[in-house]
Amino acid sequence: MTRKLILLGATGSIGRSARDVIARHRDAFTVTAVVGGSDAPALAAAARETGARYAALADGAALPALREALAGSGIACGAGEGAVMEAVAYEADLVLAAIAGTAGLRPTAAAIRPGRAIALANKESLVSAGAAFMQAASRAGVAVLPVDSEHNALAQALGNGALDDVSAMTLTASGGPFRTWSREAIAAAGPQEASKHPNWSMGAKVTIDSATLMNKGLELIEAHHLFGLEAARLDVLVHPQSIVHGLVSWRDGAVTAGLAAPDMRVPIAHALAPPGMRLDTALPRLDLAAIAALSFEKPDLERFPCLGLAMAALADGGAHPTILNAANEIAVAAFIAGRLDFYGIAVSVEKVCSRMVASEREAPDNVETALAIDERARALTREVLGM
Amino acid sequence: MTRKLILLGATGSIGRSARDVIARHRDAFTVTAVVGGSDAPALAAAARETGARYAALADGAALPALREALAGSGIACGAGEGAVMEAVAYEADLVLAAIAGTAGLRPTAAAIRPGRAIALANKESLVSAGAAFMQAASRAGVAVLPVDSEHNALAQALGNGALDDVSAMTLTASGGPFRTWSREAIAAAGPQEASKHPNWSMGAKVTIDSATLMNKGLELIEAHHLFGLEAARLDVLVHPQSIVHGLVSWRDGAVTAGLAAPDMRVPIAHALAPPGMRLDTALPRLDLAAIAALSFEKPDLERFPCLGLAMAALADGGAHPTILNAANEIAVAAFIAGRLDFYGIAVSVEKVCSRMVASEREAPDNVETALAIDERARALTREVLGM
Repeated sequence: MTRKLILLGATGSIGRSARDVIARHRDAFTVTAVVGGSDAPALAAAARETGARYAALADGAALPALREALAGSGIACGAGEGAVMEAVAYEADLVLAAIAGTAGLRPTAAAIRPGRAIALANKESLVSAGAAFMQAASRAGVAVLPVDSEHNALAQALGNGALDDVSAMTLTASGGPFRTWSREAIAAAGPQEASKHPNWSMGAKVTIDSATLMNKGLELIEAHHLFGLEAARLDVLVHPQSIVHGLVSWRDGAVTAGLAAPDMRVPIAHALAPPGMRLDTALPRLDLAAIAALSFEKPDLERFPCLGLAMAALADGGAHPTILNAANEIAVAAFIAGRLDFYGIAVSVEKVCSRMVASEREAPDNVETALAIDERARALTREVLGM
Repeated sequence: MTRKLILLGATGSIGRSARDVIARHRDAFTVTAVVGGSDAPALAAAARETGARYAALADGAALPALREALAGSGIACGAGEGAVMEAVAYEADLVLAAIAGTAGLRPTAAAIRPGRAIALANKESLVSAGAAFMQAASRAGVAVLPVDSEHNALAQALGNGALDDVSAMTLTASGGPFRTWSREAIAAAGPQEASKHPNWSMGAKVTIDSATLMNKGLELIEAHHLFGLEAARLDVLVHPQSIVHGLVSWRDGAVTAGLAAPDMRVPIAHALAPPGMRLDTALPRLDLAAIAALSFEKPDLERFPCLGLAMAALADGGAHPTILNAANEIAVAAFIAGRLDFYGIAVSVEKVCSRMVASEREAPDNVETALAIDERARALTREVLGM
């Protein structure tokens, strides 16, 4: 009995780690379809490696290159949004939803079908359209398994426990490159300083979000939708070693925690495994004696105002998180382009949220509504930034 | 629907903590019988407080005092071994087995009856007669729920996971008062120095076991029987803050851990709760930011040879753990009495084990056999010590 898989985002960082896990368990998985962005040789390699029957690129213009790269393989292929949706319709017990950004919203929502589970790595599905996404999954009886290391650790720490018995869930944050910097020093930091993440290697945008702690704020919003906990029972601890990823505090005083070395193959293996089972990753055992010390501190909302903005969006609900996320994307791009200083990110996000939230009260009830709000928020942010 | 409870060891430290938990959940529990050692007023108070129908003291001579202390309460009582067994026969869904030492072996074994669970705090049932105890529990379909903080944390971290997927279970040790001392300084330490446990307040014998790390070795043996893991998948980490009590390493690289402030009400509440549920203890939430740092180091078998002796007994199996435990009890008593220096404990235990293990190969197949081996080992230890 093999599990049938569709890999959305097969060529990105999550997709590559997933393929590494799958390659060790050839007998356990059958990959039916793979989806990439625009890199035809990389997607063709992923399709050949996994033995997929179908390969789709989001970028329609890349079709000739993909055809060429797959010549003689017998693997069918396509490009453009229709091809991506065709890939999503392939047979699957589990869909790895690892397309990054708002580009992942439509394919991830389309992946929700009865009889499937979704291993979710697309943050925007929860941040921008969380209520609608989880409702659709629940209606279809689709389990949503978090791939993000923090949420995966929380899922492991929660086990089969009852949410009523949970007094709090805590996500940890590395604290980013500015954890020990003064507010003045941070204010003067440019994209290069902000891009030095201590423990994980990630894309440029996520690395900046990690420096502002906006990343952790977005993860609180994700946790709210994934686990159904309200804002008051969700919090963040700064933990520079990134070994403890999530903690569940129970009402009897016990705490269960999920730990791992910072390697995405760990949560991916957990999310891909059949329920209640574990896949061997051949990763070395976590050696706490070698790590020697794990430290924890409260996050400083003075120096990292983006975390506070995200917490406010979570508490406020409605379209606030959708707006926050869109404004942040544009502001971070402006920071990377050198058009905005570090604290300008929080200032712009706050400005856009305060202007839009009053008129956009309702949480988007589907992906299209979320994308429309997202687009309006991006436009307003560009306007605010004079771009 | 209340859970019917028998409290064996109702007046000891575990029993008192259990009563504290039960007192917060009057509607959830009905205590049918309470058992104590020799303190009649304390047991009478426990019986009145819990509304037990029967109270029994192990010490037969204490019957008049118990009758007097219970006068007018309508609570039946008795004293001596027969009375203890009568208490064990009362109706119960769950028996808290918290009689300390080998005195707990018979009543705890007798508590195994179909339809019950056992919340186990008597270490000797697992150390001296573990295979027999777990076999009897399994035959009767009795779940054994560990009350010890380390094993309880491991049970929480294990959840419903499969043992085949576990690459290791790790128990933590505070390291005791001599964690940072040189071997020379430890060698010269007397009972007073050895009695200063950093995090837990415990009885004299357990505190010395904590200083020698024998306690942790005995807990490895307990873990072996409780969880069915062989010696190679069990280990110990020194963790001076005593916040992380147990860790389960999984073959996908993930680790789940059980944490709590060092307060026995946490594991007791977990063990007393109906399966899958949690009892509110009103204990404050664990504040890792206030604790700031958790440190971990490998145990030093040079300075703490008792841990190595226990590991050898675990690996060897048979009657070795029974002999080790009995020899250690006598040697610790001699150390407390000033008749033996600190490293004399390990030397005597090793001597007794090496003399007896060759002729006592078989693991005791019931409590009576275990008690007979235990008595022979105690006698030999006294002889070796010239007592």
